Amino acid sequence: MSFFEKHEEVLERAIQANLERTYYAQYPEHPKAYGEDAPVNGEKAYANALGKDFKELLQTGTEGWGGEENSPYTREDLGIRYPLFTPNVLVEKAMKAKKAWAKLGPEERAGILVEALDRIKNRFFEIAHATMHTTGQSFIMSFQASGPHAADRALEAIAMAYEEQARFPEEVQWVKPMGKFDITLTKEYKTIPKGVALVIGCSTFPTWNTVPGLFASLATGNPTIVKPHPKSVLPIAIVVAEIQKVLAETGLDPHICQLGADVSTNLITKSLAEHPDVAIIDYTGGSAFGNYLESLHGKTVFTEKAGVNSCILDSVADLPAVLQNIAFSVSLYSGQMCTAPQNFFIPETGIATANGTVSFEDLVAQFKTAIEGIAKHPKMGVGVLGAIQNDTTLHRLDSIRDLAVEVGLESQPVDSPEYPSIRAASPSVLVADAHNEALYELEMFGPIIFIVKTKDTNDSVARAKNLARRHGAITCLAYTTNPLVKEYIKEEMEEVFVPVTFNLTGGIFVNQHSAFSDFHVTGGNASGNASFTNPDFVNRRFVWIGYREG
Amino acid sequence: MSFFEKHEEVLERAIQANLERTYYAQYPEHPKAYGEDAPVNGEKAYANALGKDFKELLQTGTEGWGGEENSPYTREDLGIRYPLFTPNVLVEKAMKAKKAWAKLGPEERAGILVEALDRIKNRFFEIAHATMHTTGQSFIMSFQASGPHAADRALEAIAMAYEEQARFPEEVQWVKPMGKFDITLTKEYKTIPKGVALVIGCSTFPTWNTVPGLFASLATGNPTIVKPHPKSVLPIAIVVAEIQKVLAETGLDPHICQLGADVSTNLITKSLAEHPDVAIIDYTGGSAFGNYLESLHGKTVFTEKAGVNSCILDSVADLPAVLQNIAFSVSLYSGQMCTAPQNFFIPETGIATANGTVSFEDLVAQFKTAIEGIAKHPKMGVGVLGAIQNDTTLHRLDSIRDLAVEVGLESQPVDSPEYPSIRAASPSVLVADAHNEALYELEMFGPIIFIVKTKDTNDSVARAKNLARRHGAITCLAYTTNPLVKEYIKEEMEEVFVPVTFNLTGGIFVNQHSAFSDFHVTGGNASGNASFTNPDFVNRRFVWIGYREG
Repeated sequence: MSFFEKHEEVLERAIQANLERTYYAQYPEHPKAYGEDAPVNGEKAYANALGKDFKELLQTGTEGWGGEENSPYTREDLGIRYPLFTPNVLVEKAMKAKKAWAKLGPEERAGILVEALDRIKNRFFEIAHATMHTTGQSFIMSFQASGPHAADRALEAIAMAYEEQARFPEEVQWVKPMGKFDITLTKEYKTIPKGVALVIGCSTFPTWNTVPGLFASLATGNPTIVKPHPKSVLPIAIVVAEIQKVLAETGLDPHICQLGADVSTNLITKSLAEHPDVAIIDYTGGSAFGNYLESLHGKTVFTEKAGVNSCILDSVADLPAVLQNIAFSVSLYSGQMCTAPQNFFIPETGIATANGTVSFEDLVAQFKTAIEGIAKHPKMGVGVLGAIQNDTTLHRLDSIRDLAVEVGLESQPVDSPEYPSIRAASPSVLVADAHNEALYELEMFGPIIFIVKTKDTNDSVARAKNLARRHGAITCLAYTTNPLVKEYIKEEMEEVFVPVTFNLTGGIFVNQHSAFSDFHVTGGNASGNASFTNPDFVNRRFVWIGYREG
Repeated sequence: MSFFEKHEEVLERAIQANLERTYYAQYPEHPKAYGEDAPVNGEKAYANALGKDFKELLQTGTEGWGGEENSPYTREDLGIRYPLFTPNVLVEKAMKAKKAWAKLGPEERAGILVEALDRIKNRFFEIAHATMHTTGQSFIMSFQASGPHAADRALEAIAMAYEEQARFPEEVQWVKPMGKFDITLTKEYKTIPKGVALVIGCSTFPTWNTVPGLFASLATGNPTIVKPHPKSVLPIAIVVAEIQKVLAETGLDPHICQLGADVSTNLITKSLAEHPDVAIIDYTGGSAFGNYLESLHGKTVFTEKAGVNSCILDSVADLPAVLQNIAFSVSLYSGQMCTAPQNFFIPETGIATANGTVSFEDLVAQFKTAIEGIAKHPKMGVGVLGAIQNDTTLHRLDSIRDLAVEVGLESQPVDSPEYPSIRAASPSVLVADAHNEALYELEMFGPIIFIVKTKDTNDSVARAKNLARRHGAITCLAYTTNPLVKEYIKEEMEEVFVPVTFNLTGGIFVNQHSAFSDFHVTGGNASGNASFTNPDFVNRRFVWIGYREG
């Protein structure tokens, strides 16, 4: 039985889920679902990897070894070294592997890739520890984001790629009636992969943000090189290793999927991106480098860059439930999520609630209390905030002390009994007047939020829209009990291609984008030109060719 | 009954035809199908338009009038003036019309656009005369290409756009089981048009190449400005006028679709393309300007540029039938087609035929005879060749006299009893050694072909591939009776994203790309980045947005 036959049903269900967008999760997000021994074994495997060379890859042509990961929890180096390759070696190996992978066809490729996901599933716990100690995410978030949620996003991309490549028939008889006779041609349609693909990872979500592009490029027949962030390699190295093993088992060249790790002193991203044989680039990271990649001529580039996300508060039914929800959104992984809200637009006259109007000042005070409640909660605190991935983000908290702005809530170091050396900090809340746009208009990555005092909701919407137009936005959260205001917010924000989430309370947060249902990034504003996973995300990776014969 | 209800069945059939790709023509290509009076009325309408201002458009804000069309048949000015607008006025009017068109939704937009095509159908004969006397195409080609064939390509784009915009549900309940309770969100999905669209036309195919982008942009909700080539305005002006009339009838702003004509002394293309509100650009024309458009940051650009098309001759069953077919391909509209073959690669040892090997010299001689046979044919001659659109193309025939190359067949002026002043010329055949690549590597637009003497078929394929890689190619024609050679040609040419047509004889030619079946341009090489009509061609014109509510 081929891997396609083995996984055909999963693929069919995933295609259906992509279309229906109601709910589908192939990989359970509860650690318990993975068996009793899985947690212990995963932790052991992670511990066992520390301080050693990562030798699971089946790649050849190594030029040396290097690694510089450092745990935001222990502040100790992981001590893992990865094989290093020159950009030319990586691309040459990819070019050599290209033809066989293209020839295999969409079905067999999809089967192999779903099989790889199933193998990766057996390493979710190990990947979780690796994610925790490279990104600073809490353990449970590391498990979910890098494990099941990432695998579901990968499957979503495989399913979309498979569906699109099967869209047109392989062969048809084209018969054109000409009156006295017919003209007949045999026509064939075929998808041709564009070429070598490159996926550039980020330090905070090393698998979740990398696997959609990786699996989309592979599923559409392109040999793919993953260039992880040097500070966050292990989670995706395990993913690549498992893909390579399935490839080798199938008798295919493991160089169809390569890890192209590098070190800060010798970054290879630009050389790879500019290599003439690299045709496709996926990127998550800062806007400056993303804009440079988008400007490269003749490349197909998919980006997720920085954005400034807004929350518009107009009116609410249940204020405590709202505050709990937004305080959690702000705290989750210390705001180190591209989907986290940064600017909270609140009218100076306050907002209407079920119990009458709450003044601006009262609202700020209650919001602060809700945030403090999470940060100082002995059980939740560090479990929600996680750790700060790097010193730059931590130093940003210092730099804002010089801003001429009212400090609503000062960031505090956060202690962890388990990890005394943890790099962690509670959120900083700044209160700004709306016209001081320079303060809050740019992304302040990390645990920094602005409460922006506006004239009224129209002013809030106009400012949120304007920021999204100029700097991009990935999410927008809005609270209103007024259907007209709701319509107005939708109409305004859709002009800048920002999806709006309304009136969230309870256990779901604006930060979360669900596979098989939520498009992650719209691709319509400066926060990125691509979307997980709309049809473009796969279609732009291959070319339709038609053959004709007389 | 709405226009959508009226045309729903046509749309459903067109969507099906797009998927099946066997045969579908909504608009008959035989002039007789349009009624007895249609030809005479169409000719009258054209004659009546000459020397007057074109006043059918419903646009306001005219800055003046201008026009410079000149018939390649009579060499007389058409004397028609079109309203001229500043780029700012055009974009402002489009921006004002934007919201209502977007709000209408994919169904109603599709209905209105199919209705417009049906109105345009009533003017096919007038458009045919307009095309003939601006492009130089023969009357029958003008009729087919600018009439039914163009309308079918427009319908193909409307159908693809309609299908893609209906791909995801408008609203769903997303229910996520959390164990003890469920999380429920209401989610909506909506397509948001990207913004003002610009379609830049060319002088040789003023409607066929313009309507796919025009109807794709309109169908996906973008107000669209058509910037025709100043030498070829009337055919598309009629199309725009008919669209505007249907819009106005429906109570919509006719500025949803505008004509932005200009004159050579004051071209507005760059100002329009660089306008910050212009989000989408469709372009057919030279590579230099196409590359400039592709480099504009933040725009979605669809191009068809120049390419160098090859014909590879390896072996044939029926040589006279083959020669007849390729001689016709070369002669049709004097090679002024982006799909016309330019370079004929023939091994120095000749080719195998059913009657034994034919030497290189014999083959060249017979090919020349076949070409001369068409050019000098009293009935067919000028009807196949048509006229030369402009002096630049004619002068190219002079400039090649200076090349150090063997002239196989000298171009001759072609007479037309009906049009004594016609600008027409028979094809020029040059015979080059394969290694003299500089001679034949670039597109020589017009009636110029090269017979290239190669070492063998492998050499032929390598050279055709190399040219396509460096300069792009839209078509490739190949003749071989050897299945292995056929496979080899496919494998090689697909690496440079060129579709290959094999062993054509009889009444169908490599120049012809059929709506609902052939992808026109692959988008994979330097001849253009887009394809009529693959899913990308419509999907990249809008953005998917998801709304969520708790």
